[in-house]
Amino acid sequence: MNKNITSQTLSRLPLYFNYLTSLPESRKNGNISATAIAEALGLNDVQVRKDLASVSQGGRPKVGYVTNELIGDIGKFLGFANHDGVVVVGMGNFGRAMLENKSFADYGFDVVCGFDCDEKLVGTEINGKPILNVSMLREFCQNKNIHIGIITVPESAAQEVCNEMAEAGIKYILNFAPIYLTAPAGIAIHNENISITLAMLARKTNQE
Amino acid sequence: MNKNITSQTLSRLPLYFNYLTSLPESRKNGNISATAIAEALGLNDVQVRKDLASVSQGGRPKVGYVTNELIGDIGKFLGFANHDGVVVVGMGNFGRAMLENKSFADYGFDVVCGFDCDEKLVGTEINGKPILNVSMLREFCQNKNIHIGIITVPESAAQEVCNEMAEAGIKYILNFAPIYLTAPAGIAIHNENISITLAMLARKTNQE
Repeated sequence: MNKNITSQTLSRLPLYFNYLTSLPESRKNGNISATAIAEALGLNDVQVRKDLASVSQGGRPKVGYVTNELIGDIGKFLGFANHDGVVVVGMGNFGRAMLENKSFADYGFDVVCGFDCDEKLVGTEINGKPILNVSMLREFCQNKNIHIGIITVPESAAQEVCNEMAEAGIKYILNFAPIYLTAPAGIAIHNENISITLAMLARKTNQE
Repeated sequence: MNKNITSQTLSRLPLYFNYLTSLPESRKNGNISATAIAEALGLNDVQVRKDLASVSQGGRPKVGYVTNELIGDIGKFLGFANHDGVVVVGMGNFGRAMLENKSFADYGFDVVCGFDCDEKLVGTEINGKPILNVSMLREFCQNKNIHIGIITVPESAAQEVCNEMAEAGIKYILNFAPIYLTAPAGIAIHNENISITLAMLARKTNQE
């Protein structure tokens, strides 16, 4: 499987998946070409061909893909079979937005629980998901076999939460606190600083 | 000025700025070397040297930078002199988080107003910032000379809001709706899909 898939390809995979799964059973049991998918979705067929080739090896010249196999390959890539559990630490507005984000499900992620240290929030629910005390993080993640965590705490608490996630067995951390965190060995972290994203967008053409 | 500054460099510039502006006046009127800054902040001096060279041409071998000039160059790059106004459309939890985000100020951004179409929200304030009806967007942005907009509405409304921002004179759009938007000519847009960011992080090493 192609490790170097682009975010553009990833953004289109749910489109293909939704289109293919919406086809009648008779067509799902037949073949479908990248060109036909491109036409149906109004996309460039070269682009669609490349996207599909990056997640499925089932394409054959002049025949296309066995539709059901292609659905399976895309779904597998997107992780639909996984329903990977995700925890979010920090229940401010940003953390709440993460618990309410419907789009995670399109990529096979299931945000199962929020954590905070504010006793007024602990024991409540947001979007049907329980809010637990952050002291429960390790036990929860180990019991539920959770390996993905999102950090939405203030900058001052972020490194500590990162370390606690590492101890809890989290392997992938997405950090939204505006501080560049480094994670222990064996853990993949992505620091998403929205201010920097905005600065890259709005300044890069301003500062000549 | 270097247009190809990295996000890592951008993430460190506020550190340098805060350190330099905290120095006593006597040192601000003198010189300072990249090595001295690196030591004070516990950073690699080669990295600091490269960072500073990308935003200031004032560095001289064995002398370093005139401290006040360096402060000015970093501040100019970060846009502190600008206080660029930013509007946010979509006052769900994510939009509220944008109005409360303190880190924007570190990069010279000033989130001045939120917009929504929910009459229950219009007329209220979040973090001291007024919430206006989205029908006021064009008038507000033109009167206040606002050129930066953040989209935090649901997917179904995102393209319409993008078009309205373009008509309002917005030149830079940061989109958080989980849909890939294309902006009219002359407008720079960055689509930030958090699900895709998470998928890139958690799947790229999973899918071999």
